[in-house]
Amino acid sequence: MEVGVCKQEMLQKKSAVLVDGVILNGPIMDSKAGEKFVEEACKIIMEEVVQKADDVTEKVCEWQAPEKLKQILDLEMRDTGECHQKILQLCRDVIKYSVKTNHPRFFNQLYAGIDYYSLVARFITEALNPSVYTYEVSPVFLLVEEAVIKKMIEFIGWEEGDGIFNPGGSVSNMYAMNLARYKFCPEIKEKGLSGLPRLVLFASEECHYSMKKAASFLGIGTENVYFIKTDERGKMIPEELEKQVQRARNEGSAPFLVCATAGTTVLGAFDPLDKIADICEIHGLWLHVDGLLKKCYSAEAAYLFQQDKFYDVSYDTGDKSIQCSRRPDAFKFWLMWKALGTTGLEERVNRALALARYLVEEIKKREGFQLLLEPEYANVCFWYIPPSLRKMEDGPEFWQKLHQVAPVIKERMMKKGSMMLGYQPHWGKVNFFRQVVISPQVSREDMDFLLDEIELLAKDL
Amino acid sequence: MEVGVCKQEMLQKKSAVLVDGVILNGPIMDSKAGEKFVEEACKIIMEEVVQKADDVTEKVCEWQAPEKLKQILDLEMRDTGECHQKILQLCRDVIKYSVKTNHPRFFNQLYAGIDYYSLVARFITEALNPSVYTYEVSPVFLLVEEAVIKKMIEFIGWEEGDGIFNPGGSVSNMYAMNLARYKFCPEIKEKGLSGLPRLVLFASEECHYSMKKAASFLGIGTENVYFIKTDERGKMIPEELEKQVQRARNEGSAPFLVCATAGTTVLGAFDPLDKIADICEIHGLWLHVDGLLKKCYSAEAAYLFQQDKFYDVSYDTGDKSIQCSRRPDAFKFWLMWKALGTTGLEERVNRALALARYLVEEIKKREGFQLLLEPEYANVCFWYIPPSLRKMEDGPEFWQKLHQVAPVIKERMMKKGSMMLGYQPHWGKVNFFRQVVISPQVSREDMDFLLDEIELLAKDL
Repeated sequence: MEVGVCKQEMLQKKSAVLVDGVILNGPIMDSKAGEKFVEEACKIIMEEVVQKADDVTEKVCEWQAPEKLKQILDLEMRDTGECHQKILQLCRDVIKYSVKTNHPRFFNQLYAGIDYYSLVARFITEALNPSVYTYEVSPVFLLVEEAVIKKMIEFIGWEEGDGIFNPGGSVSNMYAMNLARYKFCPEIKEKGLSGLPRLVLFASEECHYSMKKAASFLGIGTENVYFIKTDERGKMIPEELEKQVQRARNEGSAPFLVCATAGTTVLGAFDPLDKIADICEIHGLWLHVDGLLKKCYSAEAAYLFQQDKFYDVSYDTGDKSIQCSRRPDAFKFWLMWKALGTTGLEERVNRALALARYLVEEIKKREGFQLLLEPEYANVCFWYIPPSLRKMEDGPEFWQKLHQVAPVIKERMMKKGSMMLGYQPHWGKVNFFRQVVISPQVSREDMDFLLDEIELLAKDL
Repeated sequence: MEVGVCKQEMLQKKSAVLVDGVILNGPIMDSKAGEKFVEEACKIIMEEVVQKADDVTEKVCEWQAPEKLKQILDLEMRDTGECHQKILQLCRDVIKYSVKTNHPRFFNQLYAGIDYYSLVARFITEALNPSVYTYEVSPVFLLVEEAVIKKMIEFIGWEEGDGIFNPGGSVSNMYAMNLARYKFCPEIKEKGLSGLPRLVLFASEECHYSMKKAASFLGIGTENVYFIKTDERGKMIPEELEKQVQRARNEGSAPFLVCATAGTTVLGAFDPLDKIADICEIHGLWLHVDGLLKKCYSAEAAYLFQQDKFYDVSYDTGDKSIQCSRRPDAFKFWLMWKALGTTGLEERVNRALALARYLVEEIKKREGFQLLLEPEYANVCFWYIPPSLRKMEDGPEFWQKLHQVAPVIKERMMKKGSMMLGYQPHWGKVNFFRQVVISPQVSREDMDFLLDEIELLAKDL
């Protein structure tokens, strides 16, 4: 519903220009009412999201089953619009029933805690609504992106390089695959893959599932991702890589890329990059490393670097991004960096890693908790063995019962709303919890709570 | 720079848990100071962006050349962070030198005017920072997306369908190509394109350049996009399509897809969909239509629909999106729809089209303005012939001189900051202005201003 027409507008309408029955004079909406609406909504956002973000007495989630939640939320889009008060109430409901990823005890993948600087940067971005593709329409954000990428290249220690921020890790892996393919055979861009030998790439068994998706999307085919065996810590075994490259050569196919991982999804393992790089050099393969800085800086921004510019981007900007216009994702990272400084960022990374180590030590001390393996990074994977299982003999029945424990605890924490923590089975290991300490915004008390709460929720199991 | 440590925190630190020299007690930052920072930044955003959005006396842009702007903005990321006051000043500068895409006289591609509802939705999204991939972590936004897509499918008149919101038109076109390819030969997903006959797709000469980019990225190859001749209005000629399909068949390649366009980028032309659909049916080709609703609703959200579900998405959600987690782009569209109602949205579309027609009639009345062609949609393409050229004879010299006019006017409007309007040459036509009236938030007065301002800026040319 449009805001009520004021007197002045009515007068204007008397001398209005009508085209096809539509009045074209003046704005379509009373901008003062619009501004007031935005102001009231911002007040709700401040009170219900920002100010509650650090309050651990608030619920992490207000769980409702899909059908129930559909009833609660008034989702239907009708012919007639709703008044501002109704829309503001909808906004409150949307906030209420959404998961609070800013909550210090949202331990599900890759969140926890609020970052005030990147939040402000994102509010600015949304208010300005830029479209990042030419300096003409996005001067500030293009310079910001350039500055951030330059700084990141310096950090890596390269003398030159290029890159863009893009919408996430999956897309970054696609870019990497596309660049490696172009490097291998530039003609593919025009001619396509048809009629060429089968391209083969290599990635560890533990790599992110987006590698297969990328191979499918890029027309390479999921069967042409050769998965390399990993050791007991989840690291790619270089000798196995060597074997698979040989196998591909013997089959007459065309090996072109190794995707190594620095911090695997589940176990947080780092592939032995030096040894892999040597193999790549010998066989003329492009080496892509998924992870690195990305996880350390906990920005959702993903990136790619080309070790050498293989085209003059000033002639071919369309190839630099698969999208035409992009969001200015570098800006939130830049503003955070400006506010914290390199030293502040470093402190945050150190704190996150120290929190992970603290959690590991606490797990070792407590009865019933058992680590899957000693973590080398921020991924802490562990089982909770409830009282009833502690005296059981090791064997298939024990593991089968343990497998059922994590889902029950998860359901209970969600329904209580006290915290959220992910679990999964992995390579024959039954369901275990995985806490990736990615956020420096949480504290020791939150780590203690995590373990206390599991004990509390599972005491009758 | 972190906010000053208060007394209480100092006391806490006495009994602090130290791990690797890092204090892990309490939060890393004073949350009250953080909230105050967000509040102050929101005040700046309200005053400098939202409240100025409808003020035509404000500049559309504050043009600075790249090197100068780098000097003005303090882009460097240093070891030590900056205080909140400095960061807030940076935010003011970022806003000042950014292009105001909300300004009623930002007529560059696909913007103009502020929408208060989608803005609020985007603020909520950024504050909640959700990751749309499972109901568990994103219950509200997944239900909202489902509701919007269901409603859109109803609108088209289909009985079933599926879709997702994704980061833009270019990515949507890639999805369409990938789906058509899967439909043509599901094995490609596993086996890749190597060893298969050459896949060929068809698109009009006037299609968006993302089609070529998509063909390159998906391993199809840009040469395998067969461009179909268009008529003088920019519409695909069905007979030419028929010929090219035959050509592809004769070459032994595999035609699989026709990409038609409803509202081309430059001229706003609609391909003859009925006739093209007939050809697709005869030859068993997938038909993808780029545009449709997308432009009408001026949401940046792009979408795709599958006419029949070719897989059970509950088993294969990874294939539904090339990203793992996505932004909840459906939400801003939903909130706008709730606030305006279907009738309100319809009024907006009608008003935008009526504004385009008004502009066309004014162009016809004014000396020196000349339409490229009678528009069939919201794209109004025109030349401005300055006084010195009006008596020149038609011929190569006239067109060569006219070609130089639009860039001069553009430079002048940018430096003055009075408005922004795009121009380009196209298929042998020299530089012309292109006003796509996509925003219903602007008024007749803004259309008049557009023409007055061109006259004013070019009176000495």
